[in-house]
Amino acid sequence: MRNPELNAKIVARGKDFFSTISGEKPSLFDKGAWMGKVMDWSMQNEQFKIQMFRFVDVFPSLTTSKLLTDHIREYFGEEMDMPPVLSAGAKMAGMLGSLGGAVLNKVISANIQEMAGRFIVGEHTGEAVKNMEKLRKDGFAAVVDVLGEATLSEEEAEVYVGTYLELLDALHDEQKGWKGLAGRGGDPGLDWGHAPMVNIAVKPTALYCLASPRDFEGSVEAILRRMRRICAKVVEMGGFLCIDMESYLLKDITLEVFRRLKMEYKDYPHLGVAFQAYLRDTDKDLADLLAWAKARNTRISIRLVKGAYWDYETVKAKQMGWPIPVWTIKAETDAAYERQARMILENHQVCHFGCASHNIRTISAVIEMANELHVPESRYEFQVLYGMAEPVRKGILKVAGRIRLYCPYGDMVPGMGYLVRRLLENTANESFLRRSFAEDDQIDRLLEDPEKTAERERGERAAKAKKPVATPGGLPRFANDPMVDFTRADHRAAFPAAIAQVRAGLGKIYPLFIGGQEVTTTDLVPSVNPAGPSEVLGKICQAGIPEVTKALAAAKAAFPAWRDTSPHGRAQYLLKAAGIARRRAFELSAWQVLEIGKQWDQAYADVGEAIDFLEYYAREMVRLGAPQRLGRAPGELNHYFYESKGVAAVIAPWNFPLAISMGMASAAIVTGNPVIYKPSSITGIIGHHLVEIFSEAGLPAGVFNYVPGAGSVMGDFLVDHPDISLIAFTGSMEVGLRIVERAAKVHPGQRNVKKIIAEMGGKNAIIIDDDADLDEAVPHVLYSAFGFQGQKCSACSRVIVLDAVYEKFTDRLVKAAQAYRIGPSEDPANTMGAVADAAARKNILEYAAMGKREGKLLYESPIPPGEGYWVPLTIIGGITPQHRLAQEEIFGPVLAIMRAKDFDQAIEWADSTRFALTGGIFSRSPEHLARARRDFRVGNLYINRNNTGAQVERQPFGGARMSGVGTKAGGPEYLLHFMDPRVVTENTMRRGFAPMDADDDWVD
Amino acid sequence: MRNPELNAKIVARGKDFFSTISGEKPSLFDKGAWMGKVMDWSMQNEQFKIQMFRFVDVFPSLTTSKLLTDHIREYFGEEMDMPPVLSAGAKMAGMLGSLGGAVLNKVISANIQEMAGRFIVGEHTGEAVKNMEKLRKDGFAAVVDVLGEATLSEEEAEVYVGTYLELLDALHDEQKGWKGLAGRGGDPGLDWGHAPMVNIAVKPTALYCLASPRDFEGSVEAILRRMRRICAKVVEMGGFLCIDMESYLLKDITLEVFRRLKMEYKDYPHLGVAFQAYLRDTDKDLADLLAWAKARNTRISIRLVKGAYWDYETVKAKQMGWPIPVWTIKAETDAAYERQARMILENHQVCHFGCASHNIRTISAVIEMANELHVPESRYEFQVLYGMAEPVRKGILKVAGRIRLYCPYGDMVPGMGYLVRRLLENTANESFLRRSFAEDDQIDRLLEDPEKTAERERGERAAKAKKPVATPGGLPRFANDPMVDFTRADHRAAFPAAIAQVRAGLGKIYPLFIGGQEVTTTDLVPSVNPAGPSEVLGKICQAGIPEVTKALAAAKAAFPAWRDTSPHGRAQYLLKAAGIARRRAFELSAWQVLEIGKQWDQAYADVGEAIDFLEYYAREMVRLGAPQRLGRAPGELNHYFYESKGVAAVIAPWNFPLAISMGMASAAIVTGNPVIYKPSSITGIIGHHLVEIFSEAGLPAGVFNYVPGAGSVMGDFLVDHPDISLIAFTGSMEVGLRIVERAAKVHPGQRNVKKIIAEMGGKNAIIIDDDADLDEAVPHVLYSAFGFQGQKCSACSRVIVLDAVYEKFTDRLVKAAQAYRIGPSEDPANTMGAVADAAARKNILEYAAMGKREGKLLYESPIPPGEGYWVPLTIIGGITPQHRLAQEEIFGPVLAIMRAKDFDQAIEWADSTRFALTGGIFSRSPEHLARARRDFRVGNLYINRNNTGAQVERQPFGGARMSGVGTKAGGPEYLLHFMDPRVVTENTMRRGFAPMDADDDWVD
Repeated sequence: MRNPELNAKIVARGKDFFSTISGEKPSLFDKGAWMGKVMDWSMQNEQFKIQMFRFVDVFPSLTTSKLLTDHIREYFGEEMDMPPVLSAGAKMAGMLGSLGGAVLNKVISANIQEMAGRFIVGEHTGEAVKNMEKLRKDGFAAVVDVLGEATLSEEEAEVYVGTYLELLDALHDEQKGWKGLAGRGGDPGLDWGHAPMVNIAVKPTALYCLASPRDFEGSVEAILRRMRRICAKVVEMGGFLCIDMESYLLKDITLEVFRRLKMEYKDYPHLGVAFQAYLRDTDKDLADLLAWAKARNTRISIRLVKGAYWDYETVKAKQMGWPIPVWTIKAETDAAYERQARMILENHQVCHFGCASHNIRTISAVIEMANELHVPESRYEFQVLYGMAEPVRKGILKVAGRIRLYCPYGDMVPGMGYLVRRLLENTANESFLRRSFAEDDQIDRLLEDPEKTAERERGERAAKAKKPVATPGGLPRFANDPMVDFTRADHRAAFPAAIAQVRAGLGKIYPLFIGGQEVTTTDLVPSVNPAGPSEVLGKICQAGIPEVTKALAAAKAAFPAWRDTSPHGRAQYLLKAAGIARRRAFELSAWQVLEIGKQWDQAYADVGEAIDFLEYYAREMVRLGAPQRLGRAPGELNHYFYESKGVAAVIAPWNFPLAISMGMASAAIVTGNPVIYKPSSITGIIGHHLVEIFSEAGLPAGVFNYVPGAGSVMGDFLVDHPDISLIAFTGSMEVGLRIVERAAKVHPGQRNVKKIIAEMGGKNAIIIDDDADLDEAVPHVLYSAFGFQGQKCSACSRVIVLDAVYEKFTDRLVKAAQAYRIGPSEDPANTMGAVADAAARKNILEYAAMGKREGKLLYESPIPPGEGYWVPLTIIGGITPQHRLAQEEIFGPVLAIMRAKDFDQAIEWADSTRFALTGGIFSRSPEHLARARRDFRVGNLYINRNNTGAQVERQPFGGARMSGVGTKAGGPEYLLHFMDPRVVTENTMRRGFAPMDADDDWVD
Repeated sequence: MRNPELNAKIVARGKDFFSTISGEKPSLFDKGAWMGKVMDWSMQNEQFKIQMFRFVDVFPSLTTSKLLTDHIREYFGEEMDMPPVLSAGAKMAGMLGSLGGAVLNKVISANIQEMAGRFIVGEHTGEAVKNMEKLRKDGFAAVVDVLGEATLSEEEAEVYVGTYLELLDALHDEQKGWKGLAGRGGDPGLDWGHAPMVNIAVKPTALYCLASPRDFEGSVEAILRRMRRICAKVVEMGGFLCIDMESYLLKDITLEVFRRLKMEYKDYPHLGVAFQAYLRDTDKDLADLLAWAKARNTRISIRLVKGAYWDYETVKAKQMGWPIPVWTIKAETDAAYERQARMILENHQVCHFGCASHNIRTISAVIEMANELHVPESRYEFQVLYGMAEPVRKGILKVAGRIRLYCPYGDMVPGMGYLVRRLLENTANESFLRRSFAEDDQIDRLLEDPEKTAERERGERAAKAKKPVATPGGLPRFANDPMVDFTRADHRAAFPAAIAQVRAGLGKIYPLFIGGQEVTTTDLVPSVNPAGPSEVLGKICQAGIPEVTKALAAAKAAFPAWRDTSPHGRAQYLLKAAGIARRRAFELSAWQVLEIGKQWDQAYADVGEAIDFLEYYAREMVRLGAPQRLGRAPGELNHYFYESKGVAAVIAPWNFPLAISMGMASAAIVTGNPVIYKPSSITGIIGHHLVEIFSEAGLPAGVFNYVPGAGSVMGDFLVDHPDISLIAFTGSMEVGLRIVERAAKVHPGQRNVKKIIAEMGGKNAIIIDDDADLDEAVPHVLYSAFGFQGQKCSACSRVIVLDAVYEKFTDRLVKAAQAYRIGPSEDPANTMGAVADAAARKNILEYAAMGKREGKLLYESPIPPGEGYWVPLTIIGGITPQHRLAQEEIFGPVLAIMRAKDFDQAIEWADSTRFALTGGIFSRSPEHLARARRDFRVGNLYINRNNTGAQVERQPFGGARMSGVGTKAGGPEYLLHFMDPRVVTENTMRRGFAPMDADDDWVD
């Protein structure tokens, strides 16, 4: 807003607006009512707010009186600071048990339902229509949005479509009896003479359960298929359809769906799409779409909102290492809105504008800009949310005459999600409604030009920006390598290109690498594509005893100089290697797609994790490399530091062929221990990538030696060898325990007791509590169990479901699984690929067969025809801890479902195997979560999310019992296992004089 | 000084004094000369000062040109900030090698020798006498002090006495030609008419090499025997003898020596003793001695000094955990001096006063107090150091007429120590000379009443006192339990009393302790006193397989509840146990004297270490018990914490029967792992002390189980048992490796891969470099090798001596060893006791015999008659790495001496065994020390001190290679070995909303 005249007009109009509604308050902030009290307390007390809104979220699943009472106590009992209306209740729930509880339950339930009712236009069609008619009487038009659970299956998508069609039918009948809201001329059968009376908003994610930018085209088409059916009916009845915009992830898919749909109804003007002003992309997206419409000479409609997923977008981007897609200063969004509104208004001939905002500055700006641009009233309208901001809607009605309420309609259960989001919005510190009506902020500030506000805030933030934290060695603080971002077209395009590039170079022979030299042998083993084993990717030279002996000698020779290289110097090689891997990330990922059948994102994640290990261990070594002073006695300096152990054997698995190999090898290397690296036989090419990366990084000869070969030929020899000082192993329990046992024998000439770092198997369970959010639980369980064909030691292989939700969960799970597509991982439309090799296939099929005997088959997917190592996605119900399916690691896509009678039993079952690797729990009970933290005794427990994909630094990975020896890869203690601590104590007193040290406990 | 009138007089006199000497400077600060430049630079640059004075200290041992050149480069080369006169030299030494070095060497040597010459009255008798006569011509009297190396043997003590006698003979002859310095009347054959012309000071430590308050009476008598011989000659020639006061450790012994000597010469007035004003004890000591003299009607003399070992006393007290015996504010010492001087002057009839100070305020105060008290001039005199503070001595001569110079005399080598101490004194920030003459501080401040100064400083210190550091759980910061302090009469008396008490309770039967219950068996094994095995101390019930099985069941049953006890709760039991052990410290120590033959201090140190383990591990568990957040991604909370492993077997040795047992057991217990404790068979009673302590502390039943028994009966059973999750073992390599190997096999029903914490043997070397300070090296090597009969895994069993110092070191070592007294440890006069049992004796004697065959016997001590397990202290020379004596652990008092051709070979030999436990080096070469830090690859390396006695927290103990598995008892990572890390990851985002955490990497 660089126009002071216009700004003055906007401010004047805003002041008028405020004076029009002077003294009125949205019902939200009416402290006389229960809801107003809750909102008031929430704005005063962040902790209460979190608990309250989380309680509201879980509320619909509290289907018994006991559940409700327990949750009230857990959320609000004890020390929570809360308003008397609730604290009395919480105490009652705690003290009186079910008797007092029953009364309280009723009060609270009634209040929450009443609250929800204010924001939801109806739970079923009849109620919705009746309420809409009531609104029309008051002069308000409506846009209807169907609330629904997350769509997890094709069936759920169908239900959603069905609801719309049913609603439209009802409205179709009903609108015959309506007359258009009064306008200035135009068609009396339309609202205000120009607008369809039936107006709906549709969420694209509700139409397809697997929508994902990885499979861009597939997602667009799948959404479009169902959207067309709704659209056809809307058009048939002359209604209005707006495609809602949800998360940034699907933004481009949504826009593409809109464009294609619009082209199918090129001449029908009442189709629109929503834009979110808070997205940094929106200026460009909007310009593009307007240009597109003009070029095609088609009229569109845009609803511009500020955006409702700010937290989610920010958190997600931070977690994934992506740039934050939204403006991070609220006023920047407000400024963007005005900018974008102007752009739409300037294009009013091709674009109708739905201005959706509660912000009086924004609304005033739109009015004034429209006036300035002489935009006809029929080309823009105002929208606010049903049940919210009553004074604002009243003011708009007075000023503009055209206002539409966004009316959600549907069940309470999904309605709660909607409700919580609205409550959060309105209690946020920067909420316009909060500032205007709950805090009575100065009107001048509320109406300030948002660009000016934003500029000031940027200045303030810059002034108080924290200095970067000092880190060991001056290296930038560790950050996980960003995940692949398929919202980016370049990332989507990179995969097919990299796969093609890899294919062009197939068929090489891969030599050993010993003492810095390539060594070829005549024993070659082919490496194949598991989705089509006749495709030979390359041939791997196999090491035998002579080659391993040579490698041991090379490593032993390299040891002294490498050990004495400074920690910082050793770390530099890892940092270089990380840079090389980053440069080659897509190509390395493509190899994983072909050699071991990882889906694109899984492959990229493996490469990213390898990079993370390099970056993290480099920093860890620099940190640990600085001797630490112990004690503070003057005259004495005690330095604690670490010594390399000797030659390390690194024995790696095929399932995270780059990440785990690189993690173990780089840990050994950076701690000063030369490595004999034996990759898995079936991922020898990926194993060879370590040679390429470390060679390019310039690692001295002998520090890293690559000796692929059959475990049966050289495994024991390597493990037994007296020149080996430590062994880092990841693989099966059987092999792990064999190594532990054999390596414990000290042979003549042996330097030290061999240190074993062994990560072994898992039989990981996810518990579904009776208050779990199934919208979340179902897809996370599927991903945990079937991602990369379940071939992860962390994979979920048991789901323990509480009796109360068993049927519902299982039903949704199975239906969701049915949507999975099985086929070559190089096709991004496939959600599951081939398993590792024929042996894996045989083993998995045997377990699946056994599962069918032990329990009840709930689902078995079809598999593709052809030569790949295909196994079906299999879900078996009726499993109890006595079954082998509940005890043995399968390492494939076979999921056992267990029905537990209560939470105690669920925990007991979860802990009932020999393993203790990962686990998961979906619950919204604070007490159950606390209990799980303690009693669900696994190395990595995940609460309310999938239980795979541990990230370096954030989720150090590894388990105990028969899952491992208690080491945690990617964690702060991992490198300690590769070294021995030493202490040097110097008596610094000579001739009775000791230099003072700043840390000394000298005299006071 | 609470008398303002007197104070005014003192200040006036002080101002007079200053004006008398106005414009003069001590030669020390004459910047025109080399010494003045060095002093000036030292006062400006602390780092240079340290290097310079250390270089001066090592200088006499730099006997070759190469040694000298190397040290100049190492001390001053590279980045040292230093005066041009030296920096040019250092560069020359670095760049030109031996050629430029030779010139430089001459310059530096000449300068240092010239500097030393200023403070030492002569290197031999003739020179000294000549210089004293020169002084007398200038009106100065003298007191002569013979400089000497530290007295390490009886022979060295004899040499020292001989030097005095020779000096006295020379003076006796010489003084016949002297006439008394002019005084006011009196005997013209005396100085000033009243003072003997021959006056000597004698250091009591020079007269007995083993002087120690532990053996108070023995030390007094031994010193007295030689003192008498000197005294007789002094008295015979009518001279004056003053007994010098050295460290606080021997203060009471020195006073006792003086009192006894004085009683033998009751009527001879010219015997004195020095007091140190800086000791907090001095007010009382002085009053006591004056009262003693009065009561006995004998005239004494006291030289009052400020005290020259302030750093040493402070550092030593801090290191030992004792109260600091000196005033910590310089002005407090000055005030004490005035107070004490007054007390002496008030008693002038019985006590002659030697006022030894360079401080003009102090001198003025003494003069004015003497005037006020009408003390005759013959009853007090002034003393200053030879070569120092020339203006002050000149002023005193003018004002008082009576001044005596303290004149050290003797070799350069010990002279350097004296020189360094003087240089340090005068460059200290608070040095009166520095302030007066180098910094020209205001005279008013210099003359201020020290009580006022002290009061102000106390206020300033209180104001800037640091707040106590916040510690986990709010516990006070860990501090080692104070060592036993034999300067305290109560501590000396406590031992015989506790031994008598223990003896009164001998003969009990000690039951097992399982699941909180005493369990008796019929298989009893007696525990005996190794110094007299017919003394049966008690009988230990032996556990067999049934009892161990029962204990395993009890521990397993106790596990879940104990594991789930909070870390803080578990820690409380350890803290209680520490309190109990502390209360019983002397009694527990007495048991060690009797059951395993530890010397008093060694026994007490073992108990103290046990207490330390309890206190330290308690704190460590509280620290580690708090879950740590990892990563900073918003919407995600990753907590890292630790889980107990299961039932622990603790298999303990006899040599640190309480400390190591308690360390391993308490670590297991506090980490939540119930313990099966098997003590050594020969220290079963001490093992039972753990039962008593943990029971009194209220540890829940089953958490600690005591099952002594034969390893041959139950060792393998325990190690193999599937219910054991971890084993903490300390003992021999053979047993350790057997445990490692057996425990690696996983048995059916086993919970986890067993974790082994094994501390095994050592074959520890101390390197004696060619510039080592042998005064320090010899006693530390002896203590390291023969303390507790060498029965420590840390004990020194090889000394690797560089060729250049081999003869001298070996000679002094052997002679020093000859002073060792072998006999029952309950007699504090004995320095070595009996070994553990008959098997140990046999083994040690076999090794000693082998040593005599492999090398050359340098010394074999006699052993007492009788039934004890006596072995001689044995020193074998001529050993090289090929000999078994250089490779195998003996665990007894057999020391091998190896002659290395150079430092490289010394390091190579040091590292040449299978072990890597402890090591030591005596060197003053910065480069060699840096090299040793890196290349002397042992778990605990000690520089310039003994290599035993690692303290909890300060020197975490343990080694690698065949000495252990790289764990460090008493260190920050020890408890980690007893637990498995876990991570709980919570997705805190619900409904797109994530609560913010202060640590989040949220948006900027």
